[in-house]
Amino acid sequence: MSSASTAGGSDRQVRGLSGFPITPMDAEGDPILGAIAPLIRRMADAGLDSAGVLGSTGGYAYLTEDQRKTVLSEALDAAQGHIPVIAGVGALRADMAARLARHAADHGAAGLLLAPMSYAPLSDDEVCDLFRRVGDASDLPICIYNNPTTTHFTFSTDLLARLADLPNVAAVKMPLLRDDSEIAALRDALPAGFAIGYSADWGCTAALLAGADAWYSVAAGMWPGPTLALARAAQAGDRDRVAELERRFEPLWDLFRRFGSFRICHAAAGPMGLTPSRPPAPLRPLPDDAMGQLQQAIEAIDS
Amino acid sequence: MSSASTAGGSDRQVRGLSGFPITPMDAEGDPILGAIAPLIRRMADAGLDSAGVLGSTGGYAYLTEDQRKTVLSEALDAAQGHIPVIAGVGALRADMAARLARHAADHGAAGLLLAPMSYAPLSDDEVCDLFRRVGDASDLPICIYNNPTTTHFTFSTDLLARLADLPNVAAVKMPLLRDDSEIAALRDALPAGFAIGYSADWGCTAALLAGADAWYSVAAGMWPGPTLALARAAQAGDRDRVAELERRFEPLWDLFRRFGSFRICHAAAGPMGLTPSRPPAPLRPLPDDAMGQLQQAIEAIDS
Repeated sequence: MSSASTAGGSDRQVRGLSGFPITPMDAEGDPILGAIAPLIRRMADAGLDSAGVLGSTGGYAYLTEDQRKTVLSEALDAAQGHIPVIAGVGALRADMAARLARHAADHGAAGLLLAPMSYAPLSDDEVCDLFRRVGDASDLPICIYNNPTTTHFTFSTDLLARLADLPNVAAVKMPLLRDDSEIAALRDALPAGFAIGYSADWGCTAALLAGADAWYSVAAGMWPGPTLALARAAQAGDRDRVAELERRFEPLWDLFRRFGSFRICHAAAGPMGLTPSRPPAPLRPLPDDAMGQLQQAIEAIDS
Repeated sequence: MSSASTAGGSDRQVRGLSGFPITPMDAEGDPILGAIAPLIRRMADAGLDSAGVLGSTGGYAYLTEDQRKTVLSEALDAAQGHIPVIAGVGALRADMAARLARHAADHGAAGLLLAPMSYAPLSDDEVCDLFRRVGDASDLPICIYNNPTTTHFTFSTDLLARLADLPNVAAVKMPLLRDDSEIAALRDALPAGFAIGYSADWGCTAALLAGADAWYSVAAGMWPGPTLALARAAQAGDRDRVAELERRFEPLWDLFRRFGSFRICHAAAGPMGLTPSRPPAPLRPLPDDAMGQLQQAIEAIDS
């Protein structure tokens, strides 16, 4: 077992339901000061297992190093004593990722989410270098962020196993579950106690029912209560209850698949009375003619 | 014809041979001050048609906005009156790309190279927004940077035609030539006078022989004289001379294909007596056991 899973005395931050909210942004694409804290408090109040700040939905890739530190500090202040925070520290440059990791540790984060962002394609050895460098920067457990759609890096199971042997590497956040056999294959390749979690919300109760340790959820960042009910039903193996609750989320999943969860959550924040927000240009907000469908999806979740 | 090709009174900067050097970087991945100017002067002395600063080989994606402005200003000071400079202004955020375009125009650049960098995948409409926004920021001609390997955005011919109708969009830099029919298809779709250029050096004399307007060359950034001789032979349609000169470059092309031209040019700069340099971590330098082959490739170019 990797040393990391015990580094914080607990690994709650890489098990159960983690909510990944947007970082609210203004018309110029800059973070709105004071707007992330209320989103963190909602997740804490709902009882989520952890909050993920500055993941893909949190727009980390679009912010400067200083902006990322400001947003994370605000989130950690709001979370302190209420909910563990996982900080996204991926960057094109290893030195920046390491600085962000130190900043996160110094300000009370419970874990790190590390994506191998790429421009020039990365080799497996280069990705190992990145995880080693960030692992050396703090004692926080690191979750491997496996998201080929955005990072353009594809992890082999062999590489995940190499990374799991590095200090502090304690968990993986997988993309959409391929099939139930995938989790068993990962368990075979990875150390005992290594936490296997999933993203792409519409496949995640299937992943929990198949034995995954965590659901890294965009929906839980915006709808923490209903998403937690769904996650707990899946963790309890209650397939009937999962099916019943999944029906309420299906209109949202449909929008996530069509427009990307990033655009959908920015579009939902205003109508939900949380905060104005829009994705940074050149990313466009959700088209006006889809707002009615979004409103119906939001209502269905609470139905 | 797009208004852009006449914006500077000439469109030399998007025709002929353009050299794209590295931005020399230190062990931390930060630009070495004073080290880009000599590379610009070598290209001017050799008589290249233009110099491309902060392209993919110039590592633009790995630098902060301030670092990019510093490097470009130094390059433009060295180039002034000697060689036109194309400035790479691609960024994940449209506001940053627009600010870089204004900075480039204010400091004497002759043209802009604009890549649709992406993290969340971009739609065609979003890429049009990006080009419109950067086009509004200055009067400089814009070259569309079509490089799916790094930007993870694939241009359709239809989208290129839409972009060519925007103000200031005057040229395209294509990836490796697929086959000779590609250029004719592009000419059919694009406005008269729109400049069609190619990159991926090992395919570029074939592109010039097939009628391309420009070769955007990594090799010309490091070996401007020999690469210019090769380009001029191809522009003159002298296939025998092209074949003869291509044999000298083949060992270099082989290394480019195996390790990426970015790593190769960083590795070559020291042994050539130009500047120490290495790619920013987590990108690794060329492995030691390939340095002998690189030395032979460098010698072959001048043979």
